[in-house]
Amino acid sequence: MEKNLSSLVNHQFRLARRPVGLPDRSIWDYTQSSVPQPGEGEVLVKALYLSLDPAMRGWMSEAKSYLPPVEIGEVMRAGMAGRVVASRDPGFAVGDLVTGILGVQEYALARSDELTKVDPAIPLPVHLHALGVPGMTAYFGLLDIGQLKAGDRVVVSGAAGAVGTIAGQIAKIKGCRVIGIAGGEHKCKYLVEELGFDGAIDYKSEDVTSAIRSHYRKGINVYFDNVGGDILDAALINLAVGARVVLCGAISQYNSTNGVKGPANYLSLLVKRATMKGLLVFDYIPRYGEATKDIAGWMSEGKLKSKADIVEGLEAFPDALLKLFRGENLGKLMLKVAED
Amino acid sequence: MEKNLSSLVNHQFRLARRPVGLPDRSIWDYTQSSVPQPGEGEVLVKALYLSLDPAMRGWMSEAKSYLPPVEIGEVMRAGMAGRVVASRDPGFAVGDLVTGILGVQEYALARSDELTKVDPAIPLPVHLHALGVPGMTAYFGLLDIGQLKAGDRVVVSGAAGAVGTIAGQIAKIKGCRVIGIAGGEHKCKYLVEELGFDGAIDYKSEDVTSAIRSHYRKGINVYFDNVGGDILDAALINLAVGARVVLCGAISQYNSTNGVKGPANYLSLLVKRATMKGLLVFDYIPRYGEATKDIAGWMSEGKLKSKADIVEGLEAFPDALLKLFRGENLGKLMLKVAED
Repeated sequence: MEKNLSSLVNHQFRLARRPVGLPDRSIWDYTQSSVPQPGEGEVLVKALYLSLDPAMRGWMSEAKSYLPPVEIGEVMRAGMAGRVVASRDPGFAVGDLVTGILGVQEYALARSDELTKVDPAIPLPVHLHALGVPGMTAYFGLLDIGQLKAGDRVVVSGAAGAVGTIAGQIAKIKGCRVIGIAGGEHKCKYLVEELGFDGAIDYKSEDVTSAIRSHYRKGINVYFDNVGGDILDAALINLAVGARVVLCGAISQYNSTNGVKGPANYLSLLVKRATMKGLLVFDYIPRYGEATKDIAGWMSEGKLKSKADIVEGLEAFPDALLKLFRGENLGKLMLKVAED
Repeated sequence: MEKNLSSLVNHQFRLARRPVGLPDRSIWDYTQSSVPQPGEGEVLVKALYLSLDPAMRGWMSEAKSYLPPVEIGEVMRAGMAGRVVASRDPGFAVGDLVTGILGVQEYALARSDELTKVDPAIPLPVHLHALGVPGMTAYFGLLDIGQLKAGDRVVVSGAAGAVGTIAGQIAKIKGCRVIGIAGGEHKCKYLVEELGFDGAIDYKSEDVTSAIRSHYRKGINVYFDNVGGDILDAALINLAVGARVVLCGAISQYNSTNGVKGPANYLSLLVKRATMKGLLVFDYIPRYGEATKDIAGWMSEGKLKSKADIVEGLEAFPDALLKLFRGENLGKLMLKVAED
């Protein structure tokens, strides 16, 4: 435990301007301030890991969405896993491990309703991945929005990313066939050999439409979309009657400077009487317990792997974010900010 | 009843070539043959009215869909309402009024499973509209796909067309607010003054996105889409949380020569946790009875109007079809082929 917290410096990344296209270094201010003291009912958290997520691109933009935009000059919003280093809330003790949306900084003040206490027996990165927001997203996206059932022919895009790796494994656990779409031979090999996918399509070297058709002559029952763009179109044209399309994200479109490309093949939803439904994981907060129990169980049985891609140091934040949007991560990308 | 059917001529429109863009006159062959004699189990139907539907554009194209394409040289597929003039099926008597998908021709042979016997007390055009496929489409699209409930804020595009006029009226009957989108002042006035819509947006003279917002500050609960294109995008950006988008058609896109424009605002489905689902009315054939009972009841109570836009003569078929795709019809467009 730090003895004299107020003498320590808190470094932060703040949004200096809104990005046009990829969020390059120039949009960030790297600032420092003293570490704040918790007031009554507050907890001071020291960041150990920060989560890097595609959704951050949306939070940087001015457009109205499910959360308010990050304001210019504000600390960038991000998920954090850390340790309580001072507490004026009786529910939290110094040393507790917690997660929360606490920003790109080394220390954060939080109230109890912003924090989730996590099991110290499980490595902290897992709490940002399989047991964190990506795991919840994959679980409720497939089972609730996607109405997954045994025997379904499933396709997951962004399959080597944080959500995709979990979604594909859950589909296998539930008795489905699953094909992952990812960029590059290395990722595709990982999906099949390490995570047990039935197949993988390398969108950088294959024609995705015909590759899906060659895997699933009878079409896709559940398509879990993390990417949008041409890959969404390739999936739509390959739907089976009654298919469910889970809209989780559209990373291929977030940095577009000439608008979002809508899915030209959307009328396949009509021809195939299919459903496309959007997922916002925060709607499921009251049900996170169900998912956590299942996923922790599958992990302890060795059926599900949580894969972290860890970049060292808070200062690496701008570059790590570019790595994410260039699709260079394998598994859940996070920053390691401090040693526990 | 015709005495000597075999001496009569049967005129037909056959598909001579597949259209590029609008289906102009050059794609049709106007042919004649003798009227066929019904074989055992067959019925000969004399066409009185033919139905002109946006879906016909899809049937002309070579692309695989929910029905096989009309082949080159084949009589064009179309809905027909007519009278039985000869029968070798004990279930049908000469004089019975029937509907079926019997093609653009003056006489058609059919088997019992292709025919629906209709109530002669109700004008025949109603059987091609409120009590026909458009009525069934509006009913199941709103109530089943759209999960309509009282108090919903509803928007219908193509609102002055065959399906739209019925959909809007059903929404009103079910206790919803309904705004119709249509082209031109005349149609908009008709929707509000004759059919009881709460408002109408003239897409030819108004900005649809801001017009929807001014009607529904809290967003749309159910959007019934007949048109696709920019109007679909305007609706998507105005969805309320949990909205349902009923995909019924995309008449703005059917004649496009440079591909379908996908909805650039589809990520609104994600932000608003909304559902977009395709409707194919033929899936509901086993449940047509429910809809027919309700709609006939509403009509007899004066709550629902069936509006036919009637063009005279089989030879007018190619021009009438262009009228449909130019959006010049008000209500259900049909050809009157013969006097009863």
